[in-house]
Amino acid sequence: MKDTFTIGIDLGGTNLKGGVVDSSGRVVVRQNIRLGSDKSVDKIITYITELIKRFLKSTYQPIAAVGCGVPGIVDMSSGIVHHSPNLPDWDNVPVRDQIAARIGLPAILDNDANMWAAGEICFGAGKGCRNMVLLTLGSGIGGGLVLNGDVFRGDEGFAGEVGHIVIDPDGPFCNCGGRGCWEHYAASRAFATHALKLPKGEFSALLARAGGNISHLTPELMATLAKNGDEVAIKLWHCFGRYLGIGIATLLNVLGVETFVIGGGIARSFDNFSAATRDAVLAHTYSHHSSKFMLKKATLGDDGGIIGAAVEASKRLSTLKL
Amino acid sequence: MKDTFTIGIDLGGTNLKGGVVDSSGRVVVRQNIRLGSDKSVDKIITYITELIKRFLKSTYQPIAAVGCGVPGIVDMSSGIVHHSPNLPDWDNVPVRDQIAARIGLPAILDNDANMWAAGEICFGAGKGCRNMVLLTLGSGIGGGLVLNGDVFRGDEGFAGEVGHIVIDPDGPFCNCGGRGCWEHYAASRAFATHALKLPKGEFSALLARAGGNISHLTPELMATLAKNGDEVAIKLWHCFGRYLGIGIATLLNVLGVETFVIGGGIARSFDNFSAATRDAVLAHTYSHHSSKFMLKKATLGDDGGIIGAAVEASKRLSTLKL
Repeated sequence: MKDTFTIGIDLGGTNLKGGVVDSSGRVVVRQNIRLGSDKSVDKIITYITELIKRFLKSTYQPIAAVGCGVPGIVDMSSGIVHHSPNLPDWDNVPVRDQIAARIGLPAILDNDANMWAAGEICFGAGKGCRNMVLLTLGSGIGGGLVLNGDVFRGDEGFAGEVGHIVIDPDGPFCNCGGRGCWEHYAASRAFATHALKLPKGEFSALLARAGGNISHLTPELMATLAKNGDEVAIKLWHCFGRYLGIGIATLLNVLGVETFVIGGGIARSFDNFSAATRDAVLAHTYSHHSSKFMLKKATLGDDGGIIGAAVEASKRLSTLKL
Repeated sequence: MKDTFTIGIDLGGTNLKGGVVDSSGRVVVRQNIRLGSDKSVDKIITYITELIKRFLKSTYQPIAAVGCGVPGIVDMSSGIVHHSPNLPDWDNVPVRDQIAARIGLPAILDNDANMWAAGEICFGAGKGCRNMVLLTLGSGIGGGLVLNGDVFRGDEGFAGEVGHIVIDPDGPFCNCGGRGCWEHYAASRAFATHALKLPKGEFSALLARAGGNISHLTPELMATLAKNGDEVAIKLWHCFGRYLGIGIATLLNVLGVETFVIGGGIARSFDNFSAATRDAVLAHTYSHHSSKFMLKKATLGDDGGIIGAAVEASKRLSTLKL
């Protein structure tokens, strides 16, 4: 049987990544573009279509379709981006059809975490599972739910907004309009959230290490401090891990899904938080799960979004049309 | 086409209900049995099979299969009850096969909220929806998730344990082994939980109305007090509604499902809490949902579990065997 090639595109906040992917999930060509400061819809769509055109010119393989993952809430069936927290003018824009029209190929569009989840279940950490939740830990918490073997998208693509699980209804305000959302307790900004509850002496010492600026308490700095044995940093990673586990416990109780895969920049510090996460999950779920619950690092790494987007496009070839 | 008849059984904590249901969801015969104090596996299975045999004798219609909803965590594919909070010795028991063997008919077994959800999506408040969450509010919070038209059961039937969404990780201990579970804030015992945070004067006045016993702050008493204009009772219903909404917001953000159907005894007081619930949901989710979110009362009432169990059995006729 002839191999089928599709293009996967993964749009991030600062980078655009793309690749040509074969049917075994191998990225045969890849490219990474740094985005400029202009993040208007038209500019980004131009970046995406130019990258696709470059692939079409440079590869010998015939390309069947394009899959495109973007950060934000996407209605896959209509190809419309409802909302994107980092791309303010992406408000109910029919992005998929604009891309397809410019490149002359069928395209699909979905949320980036959904695409990545599709990649991990086919070729990564979720291989062989029927159900899996991918959590991407970065400036927020993205979620991709794989239920009964397929990405579950909910009404109009709003499923997987797990970063807005309510942890504390009176907690800090969130850009979703709510308060005390999970991503304030278990994503980049969590270290600032938890630091504010430290005893005064510990807080001052930690703040000094961040140059006196609480917003400098990044996962990268916290990882360096923990590596050097800083006890306050180790304590905050524990706190981060615990709150990650509290949200996962809620997901496990709701979905009955036992495999959780962690991706995103903060997954690099997996060993700093995973034990606390596991403890918190088991403390807040039925004991049945203690032998079944799996917490894993994503294995597709930087290529996850590309591979997943290409896989999802490839799965839909028979129904896609231009 | 000839009508198909199935039997639906709905096992509760104190009653066993059953009925013969036609393919339009109509209950043509029904019966209700009060359970005795002996809740051993064998005794309950005898109750169930005797009731089924009575239906088989008394109805002229040929019965194709039996569906049985039970309170607890059930692996539908194996027919095993993992765990039931109200039936302590129901621990990894192959209940389905015991029933099927005794009645000589194919049977399916599932969690009662799942069965009811199947009924509401086919013939009740969720009719026409692709996605729906049923919440049963009683001594706990049961959940039935209908995703892409079917009940979603998760790994080994553990989906829908929504009563254990973590509301406060340092909150009251729960029989699931966790702490601060949702059902402490938005089911029967919620009134005691919230009363403890009242100002002293209000607490004392309310306690006096409950005969000095905090465990008498039942939904029934609270409904009567609210009806009579008791301001503290009205305030606690508001609190109940708010916490119901906080959990629903989490479910909405995770699942992207916009239709929530409320059943169970406390649904009778829907008007006492639903406005506060709606406000809390909209305060903790994207503004997109404000025009889409639907909070409804279940419409199948006491027959919901019977109809749903019969529907699920009927849907599986082609794959069921004895």
